[in-house]
Amino acid sequence: MTDRVLQQPDRLAETTGALLAEVRSNGPLVQCITNIVVANFTADTLLALGAAPAMVDITGEAGLFAGVADGVLINLGTPSAEQREAMREAAAGANQAGTPWVLDPVAIGALPVRTDLAVDLIRFRPTAVRGNASEILALAGAGSGGRGVEATDSTDSAATAAITFAREHDNVIAVSGPEDLITDGKVTVRVANGDALLTRMTGGGCALGSVIAAVLAVRGQISTLDAIASAHVIYGIAAERGAHGAAGPGSFAVRFLDALASLSPEEAVAAARVRAERASPLGPKGACP
Amino acid sequence: MTDRVLQQPDRLAETTGALLAEVRSNGPLVQCITNIVVANFTADTLLALGAAPAMVDITGEAGLFAGVADGVLINLGTPSAEQREAMREAAAGANQAGTPWVLDPVAIGALPVRTDLAVDLIRFRPTAVRGNASEILALAGAGSGGRGVEATDSTDSAATAAITFAREHDNVIAVSGPEDLITDGKVTVRVANGDALLTRMTGGGCALGSVIAAVLAVRGQISTLDAIASAHVIYGIAAERGAHGAAGPGSFAVRFLDALASLSPEEAVAAARVRAERASPLGPKGACP
Amino acid sequence: MTDRVLQQPDRLAETTGALLAEVRSNGPLVQCITNIVVANFTADTLLALGAAPAMVDITGEAGLFAGVADGVLINLGTPSAEQREAMREAAAGANQAGTPWVLDPVAIGALPVRTDLAVDLIRFRPTAVRGNASEILALAGAGSGGRGVEATDSTDSAATAAITFAREHDNVIAVSGPEDLITDGKVTVRVANGDALLTRMTGGGCALGSVIAAVLAVRGQISTLDAIASAHVIYGIAAERGAHGAAGPGSFAVRFLDALASLSPEEAVAAARVRAERASPLGPKGACP
Repeated sequence: MTDRVLQQPDRLAETTGALLAEVRSNGPLVQCITNIVVANFTADTLLALGAAPAMVDITGEAGLFAGVADGVLINLGTPSAEQREAMREAAAGANQAGTPWVLDPVAIGALPVRTDLAVDLIRFRPTAVRGNASEILALAGAGSGGRGVEATDSTDSAATAAITFAREHDNVIAVSGPEDLITDGKVTVRVANGDALLTRMTGGGCALGSVIAAVLAVRGQISTLDAIASAHVIYGIAAERGAHGAAGPGSFAVRFLDALASLSPEEAVAAARVRAERASPLGPKGACP
Repeated sequence: MTDRVLQQPDRLAETTGALLAEVRSNGPLVQCITNIVVANFTADTLLALGAAPAMVDITGEAGLFAGVADGVLINLGTPSAEQREAMREAAAGANQAGTPWVLDPVAIGALPVRTDLAVDLIRFRPTAVRGNASEILALAGAGSGGRGVEATDSTDSAATAAITFAREHDNVIAVSGPEDLITDGKVTVRVANGDALLTRMTGGGCALGSVIAAVLAVRGQISTLDAIASAHVIYGIAAERGAHGAAGPGSFAVRFLDALASLSPEEAVAAARVRAERASPLGPKGACP
Repeated sequence: MTDRVLQQPDRLAETTGALLAEVRSNGPLVQCITNIVVANFTADTLLALGAAPAMVDITGEAGLFAGVADGVLINLGTPSAEQREAMREAAAGANQAGTPWVLDPVAIGALPVRTDLAVDLIRFRPTAVRGNASEILALAGAGSGGRGVEATDSTDSAATAAITFAREHDNVIAVSGPEDLITDGKVTVRVANGDALLTRMTGGGCALGSVIAAVLAVRGQISTLDAIASAHVIYGIAAERGAHGAAGPGSFAVRFLDALASLSPEEAVAAARVRAERASPLGPKGACP
């Protein structure tokens, strides 16, 4: 711990517990426009969390629904032509109504259609962008994307791009990796909760986007940064508990949902592994004397 | 039990057992046009039941296939433009060929595209419409829909609308809830089998629609009402057994499929909790002296 | 064993182990254009195997990606209009770049749109075609297809059509059944690994197609026929292990993924049940004196 640590872990852990309790008592309605691979697991994750999923992803409904939903996730995994239009509708609707919304720019960089789409959607001011390091680098124009949906860059390598992008767009960027990095350009939070099995099943990253949207929906006076970090903590703890005793990725997915559904706010507070530091666009090492 | 109970529970329980045995021996071919969230779980449910799923949901094939399938499910969960056309084809094809078909008007009410679609599909005379209370009220023009895919109305509050709609359209309306209500406008059957965990995973309602289609496909001389009630009983018993020992919604989904696959007709007869009463459009209380 | 057995089981078993080790160490990038029912299970299967799935299935990206992917699967399960175009793009891209690609002509025969599509895609020279006996017979113009997605013909009944088709198109045809039959028109390999529970869950056949694509991607100097047979062996052994202790199709799917993820090359060699024989277009019986 150095003087760059701005916030006590305890405070963020307490925030996580409070937000989990809020989700449970409010059951926020989360609209998801997501891909055919993870639609099921994403909806199951939201239900396990205590939120109410609604996969409203067609034109003529998506924008309207974004105005009444409590949170919105737009995930670019398999963006068919109709879904792309629905995404634009939903992003515009969320932006206009003030509904918090999360962009997950899956596999942008080398794939042109979704890369253009992501740039276009940024106009509607997502509350948060989450992705792996390669996706965040590609979004910031600082990388060519990963290998399909996999990151080929480290989380730290995306730190500068994330901080700069967050400052320029006044939003929060969340980079998933062995340790997650979440930044609003001023403060960077690192979440160590999680398990490598999340990368051995589909939806490990995609469903996290829906949890972020659910937590943002109930954040009240809590900052966007802290809410998004809390979503990562909740998700990561459920992964740790799901991994305990799992015989492989199949049983892990099942146990993850069970663990998420049964996780109590008190347990979340106790298991949180999170720390905050002043964000430097030069990265952690650049800030050293 | 009052004088309004028309049928002995034992009779409906026996019917349930007989129909489960029929599904197992005939393996009815069930066409499903359903949403991207539950397509997998729906097909797995049909396979566990002993039926043969076929997700034929494109134009140019859907109508043709509805003429050769033994039963059809049309679920409005994520109705893309092409799927909407395929649904019209399939509904017309089923209607023309006399194939029993089930409409699940997911989240109609507040969402305009699917609401119009549901009204349009009713023209093709679905054998049954299943949904939660809010969806059935919206279909009957007596409600504004629920909250996304969740009901905000109680099953009993939809009883009058269901009975009236069933009488007007000469079909069966099935309302899912803590106790399911199934009516043909003359008799109302209530099924108490089920478990609350069905609402904590996706597909809990949607997959039921496919089981109804499968059971209708083999009903023979059994009434449509009794067949649909039996489908609810089978599904509900599998849920009860799946819930036994489940650690949460993840393991519940797995156990539900195992339980459905292993449920014997004799066990279904023994575990059925079902009763019938004369249907009154004024509802249960209105019929009291 | 007769004089028609050309290759020792031991050799193919060793090949299987070597290819499993290659997949694990190389993590081939496998593009899948597949149906909404099995997209999730297919991606989970590839991850459990050690490959990297990427469901790039939209026009404007599919063809481009097929040029950089290590293997491609095109599965005709729910071929929407946009997906059909993307499939043509991907098949052309794979053919041009020399990327091995697998065609799974789900339910062709009675369904006209996908039957025409399959014939069209054959122009782009798939490395392998896999399906059940009815699908292979329909592809060869020798049958009218199965019952929905189910085979109504035996594996042996498709042997002649498979051998003839493989000879004419210089590719490999793989027919799934109680015993799988894989042929390049000159040699026929039979794989006895597998479990009947694969037919009680969705994706049992479809996900195999993705495993074939992954193994083809790392085959190096190993023949296409041997690589595809090895994919069947790996998949079948995982099914056998997954079935061990499963309480039904729900727990089987979970255990299958766990078993696939933990299967070692040495275990694959030991459990392989595979044999090769000279291919005769007249079938095994026709070759007898």
